[in-house]
Amino acid sequence: MVKRILVSNDDCYLSPGLYLLANAVDSLGDVLISSTEFPRSATGREITFSRPLRYVEKLYGGRTVYVTDGTPIDALHLAVEVLGFRPDVVLSGVNVGDNLSLQHIFYSGTLAVAIEAALMGIPSIAFSAGVDSFRGFENPVLRDVIVKVASHLTKKVLDEGLPEGVDLLSVNIPPHPNGCVEVTRAARIRWRAAYRRGIDPRGRTYYWLYGLRSGVEEGTDVAAYERGCITVTPLNIDLNVSEVLLSRVKEFVADLRIKL
Amino acid sequence: MVKRILVSNDDCYLSPGLYLLANAVDSLGDVLISSTEFPRSATGREITFSRPLRYVEKLYGGRTVYVTDGTPIDALHLAVEVLGFRPDVVLSGVNVGDNLSLQHIFYSGTLAVAIEAALMGIPSIAFSAGVDSFRGFENPVLRDVIVKVASHLTKKVLDEGLPEGVDLLSVNIPPHPNGCVEVTRAARIRWRAAYRRGIDPRGRTYYWLYGLRSGVEEGTDVAAYERGCITVTPLNIDLNVSEVLLSRVKEFVADLRIKL
Repeated sequence: MVKRILVSNDDCYLSPGLYLLANAVDSLGDVLISSTEFPRSATGREITFSRPLRYVEKLYGGRTVYVTDGTPIDALHLAVEVLGFRPDVVLSGVNVGDNLSLQHIFYSGTLAVAIEAALMGIPSIAFSAGVDSFRGFENPVLRDVIVKVASHLTKKVLDEGLPEGVDLLSVNIPPHPNGCVEVTRAARIRWRAAYRRGIDPRGRTYYWLYGLRSGVEEGTDVAAYERGCITVTPLNIDLNVSEVLLSRVKEFVADLRIKL
Repeated sequence: MVKRILVSNDDCYLSPGLYLLANAVDSLGDVLISSTEFPRSATGREITFSRPLRYVEKLYGGRTVYVTDGTPIDALHLAVEVLGFRPDVVLSGVNVGDNLSLQHIFYSGTLAVAIEAALMGIPSIAFSAGVDSFRGFENPVLRDVIVKVASHLTKKVLDEGLPEGVDLLSVNIPPHPNGCVEVTRAARIRWRAAYRRGIDPRGRTYYWLYGLRSGVEEGTDVAAYERGCITVTPLNIDLNVSEVLLSRVKEFVADLRIKL
């Protein structure tokens, strides 16, 4: 049986990272590319209920690609429900910019696609690279590394599935990989919010966000990545707590009486 | 020491749910309301880096409220970093509409605020009610129930903290509560995407998303809520897997060799 591989991203259908990923896994199965018309980074996991969506076939980069005017999550659902393409694995990326730490994992549109696939019960892999524009993907060393990592991990997931309890993998590729690959935990946070206060040309106050680096804990994705390693971070999207903790929370509500 | 309570939401500063929540906890400490100028439901966890933000003090509903033209996450960071208000607990809501199942938890702006607080190490509670507009908050029975639940849980968290391993509570209040309160696990999904295909007035195809209900598993938030219970769902935002599973993923990359 030919395996089905759905490739999506949050940088829109014009991103070379999307085609780099799709081309890397072409020999492993039937590949369908579904993406968005416009970049949707950091819009997190938006889904479009309020208006109708377009979903059209285009030719780009020598490949057929399906494009929506919605969000990355919309692109995933449209491929499955409108095209009837039920994937064995969902690949997201390659994103322009890394997605290290839980903080970025919760924000990222690239991860949102992978998490949505996991909610649907489909194994997924998110790929992010430490480049700051589409041009960054022209680096031949980086391209080679991405192709190697993506084809290797995708083949493993198609052949063996992810281990029970792992819903998805988040892979980060540094701008200058030194050859090492580390399986890591995600750090909790990577930066703390700070604001530059200023006065606009019309005399009104504004605040502009920037990030202050948090300390780096050894053993985390951030630490390994900063040493030049490719990081592979397995994630489980079940936010529920253990039975023991559930019982402890029951004590919180034990004396709450609602009289109607 | 007076406790500090930050109240925010994703329905904008005009929502009666925001003031219902703030008024419910007024006697428990120093309450600050920080919200958004416009509704930001289902925009998930967006954060604004690309442009400057406004953050102004307004009087509304007889209270002082701080309002940003950014997102709910921005409203949280601005309160902490610009106003220097470091809360002991963050409350989010009361949202117009429930937020049951992991699927909604990952989408919801209300939960995004609570998750962001958790990432900052601050305990948080998200409140969502089964109303479909601001008018729904006029129901006096529902108001009483919300006030009772919010003040009870907030007091508990301020007095005792959340149990170690619980990062936040997600509370859902049905439109017609029957008096029971259940501590539940979040169901995984609540609906499956489906699309109505149509032709627009100019002859082009469109797709409009709607949800098909998934089966309801007993013991979950969805099941308890549908029986008329208030649900309290403890959540842990650490998506990392166990050491055992980390080792199993190491086997995935064991034979991956990157030659540069």
